[in-house]
Amino acid sequence: MLALGTKRSVIREIFEYGKKRKSEIGADNVFDFSLGNPSVPAPAEVNEALCRLISSTPAEVLHGYTSAQGDARVRGAIAEYINNTHGVCESADKIFLTVGAAASLTVSLNALLNQGEEVMALVPFFPEYRVFVEKAGGRLVTVNYREEDFQPDIAHFEASITPRTRAVIVNSPNNPTGAVLTEETIKEIARILTEKSREYGEDIYIISDEPYRELVYDKESYVPYIPKCYGNTIVSYSFSKSLSLPGERIGYILVPAACNNADKIYGAVCGSARALGFVCAPSLFQYLIPEVIGKTSDISIYKKNRDILYGALTSYGYKAVKPDGAFYLFVKAPFGNAKELCERAKKHELLLVPGDDFGCPEYVRISYCVSTDQIERSLGAFKNLIDEYEA
Amino acid sequence: MLALGTKRSVIREIFEYGKKRKSEIGADNVFDFSLGNPSVPAPAEVNEALCRLISSTPAEVLHGYTSAQGDARVRGAIAEYINNTHGVCESADKIFLTVGAAASLTVSLNALLNQGEEVMALVPFFPEYRVFVEKAGGRLVTVNYREEDFQPDIAHFEASITPRTRAVIVNSPNNPTGAVLTEETIKEIARILTEKSREYGEDIYIISDEPYRELVYDKESYVPYIPKCYGNTIVSYSFSKSLSLPGERIGYILVPAACNNADKIYGAVCGSARALGFVCAPSLFQYLIPEVIGKTSDISIYKKNRDILYGALTSYGYKAVKPDGAFYLFVKAPFGNAKELCERAKKHELLLVPGDDFGCPEYVRISYCVSTDQIERSLGAFKNLIDEYEA
Repeated sequence: MLALGTKRSVIREIFEYGKKRKSEIGADNVFDFSLGNPSVPAPAEVNEALCRLISSTPAEVLHGYTSAQGDARVRGAIAEYINNTHGVCESADKIFLTVGAAASLTVSLNALLNQGEEVMALVPFFPEYRVFVEKAGGRLVTVNYREEDFQPDIAHFEASITPRTRAVIVNSPNNPTGAVLTEETIKEIARILTEKSREYGEDIYIISDEPYRELVYDKESYVPYIPKCYGNTIVSYSFSKSLSLPGERIGYILVPAACNNADKIYGAVCGSARALGFVCAPSLFQYLIPEVIGKTSDISIYKKNRDILYGALTSYGYKAVKPDGAFYLFVKAPFGNAKELCERAKKHELLLVPGDDFGCPEYVRISYCVSTDQIERSLGAFKNLIDEYEA
Repeated sequence: MLALGTKRSVIREIFEYGKKRKSEIGADNVFDFSLGNPSVPAPAEVNEALCRLISSTPAEVLHGYTSAQGDARVRGAIAEYINNTHGVCESADKIFLTVGAAASLTVSLNALLNQGEEVMALVPFFPEYRVFVEKAGGRLVTVNYREEDFQPDIAHFEASITPRTRAVIVNSPNNPTGAVLTEETIKEIARILTEKSREYGEDIYIISDEPYRELVYDKESYVPYIPKCYGNTIVSYSFSKSLSLPGERIGYILVPAACNNADKIYGAVCGSARALGFVCAPSLFQYLIPEVIGKTSDISIYKKNRDILYGALTSYGYKAVKPDGAFYLFVKAPFGNAKELCERAKKHELLLVPGDDFGCPEYVRISYCVSTDQIERSLGAFKNLIDEYEA
């Protein structure tokens, strides 16, 4: 625990460096692309609804304990929204409100895993997955990717499953690539997991980490609802990115009706949350959800940022796959050395995150959830950075 | 995890029974004393400050990520308040904001414990301690109490320490008795822990679970600040009860300056929170704290409730120790059978919690954080209940 606390995540390290540098030379002169902190504010309806709730609800109710699973009416509103959006028939009784995406993941992992079991992550993946899996007593197994589109290498996926595999974490749209898993990919994964579950006589679950579900930018980008392809899926959702509320910690776990032993899995989720110390999700932000569900921040700003950044960087000679969603661009480092690129970038006041902890030491992550102005002003620095390599 | 999720805590079971019963015969006709959910609303300053924060802070800041430890200004305000209140010199850099008391405890326990180590709890104790300790890989060891004042049996305390003892959880004012540990008791505990730490060559920590710190009702009741008596203390605080915000999940851990290896312990707290999935405490409620720190809900109502209930019940023949603080009265069941008393009580529409899970199967817990009206209307039922035993 000490090591986890003192060797902070690389992202946080760079964030702290950025804070220091900004105080030295002024915030406008540092081009900080390190953190996935939404730059677009929450939609106005959020603060309006918060004020309405505060003025109209007795304080001892508004700020009081809810059921551990979350307020029943709130869970009902979420179930209704999911059912209308995806044409399914999920139950409010299988939704568990959480303190954000990280909690959705740790609660799910601690619910599913026995000591020494394996959890697969598709490279590149959010580095905290390893921390969460290992703390839950599991072992992280990584699956290779196809460089042309950041879909998983299906043959390697299949070969990596063992009798100890208990779950696969998928994250689509993906952090750090912005790639969306295609329906074809998901069907392949589902086919293999079904076969392997049968072969080994134990269900293997998908944990679908979906904080970026609504953040897709092109008409043709479609984020499949995974439980329709594979029943044994646990949906791990957060409102952090869609509503720009990352500090408030509000999300949910859904155990779909199609899941085998859904009652037992949901019961284990309740037990896991209890043992980890999650009493309930913050009550005011629970009550907010039915007021704003389906709304999002103005994501057209992220789309604009993506288009400017992707267009400029590829024109300068950077190699990248155009992201379908989320707010990250994953760029290949010249000569495949991300750490070197990030160090050189600092000299141009560009703060980028090396892909090492994501499982891709040849790439850097650029978070474009920043102001469009910052992107436009940073383009010269990006050009100078790559020109250095060619000099 | 399934067992923890489906065999819910006894308190929650009774709470759910109460909800059902209220829908059958009307809420006013059920005397529900089962849950520690503050009945006194948050002070008006809370909602005023929330509205002010919402209208004056840019949404992307107000609802954005803070540092994992919590916003620096908020931690500074808490440190200042602690220092002014207790005449100490604690640092904002050793405060870690948490998602409430349960999180303060699980984060602390997972920071301190190695697999198989022991944590002591003073009977009677909050039942979730066992769940939290076991999930953190530890073993709960219980220490007997003195029936006359609910202070720990010091000889048994000393005899229960082993080379595997890593921590002692103390909870003063106590749930479920309302007892406050005296300075004499704390000094005895400190003396023994100091000796045993030296004998075994390993620090033994006090985890001071303090959600009821401000809830004391008599001038002579004084809640000692434990780090002054014993440096190796981790303070685990929550604003749930003092500000009546239990649903909002906001509290903190303090590693005092007097703690050996405070930097390392604080680092392990950061790592533990990260691995359990606590990204940060809810940001709006973090920013609330400096606006209202030192304020409390109107606790004179709890004092009034205590006085009415304790006076009436002892006059009817119930045996109880007058609680100094918190909002619980712990009553001895006739013939020492708490479960029987609780079952009989249900026939009088009285919902009480048997002490079994608190380590005291001869007692029942009565939460008097209810309306004074409910207490006054319930007195007849309490009288009829004990009269049954004498008939």
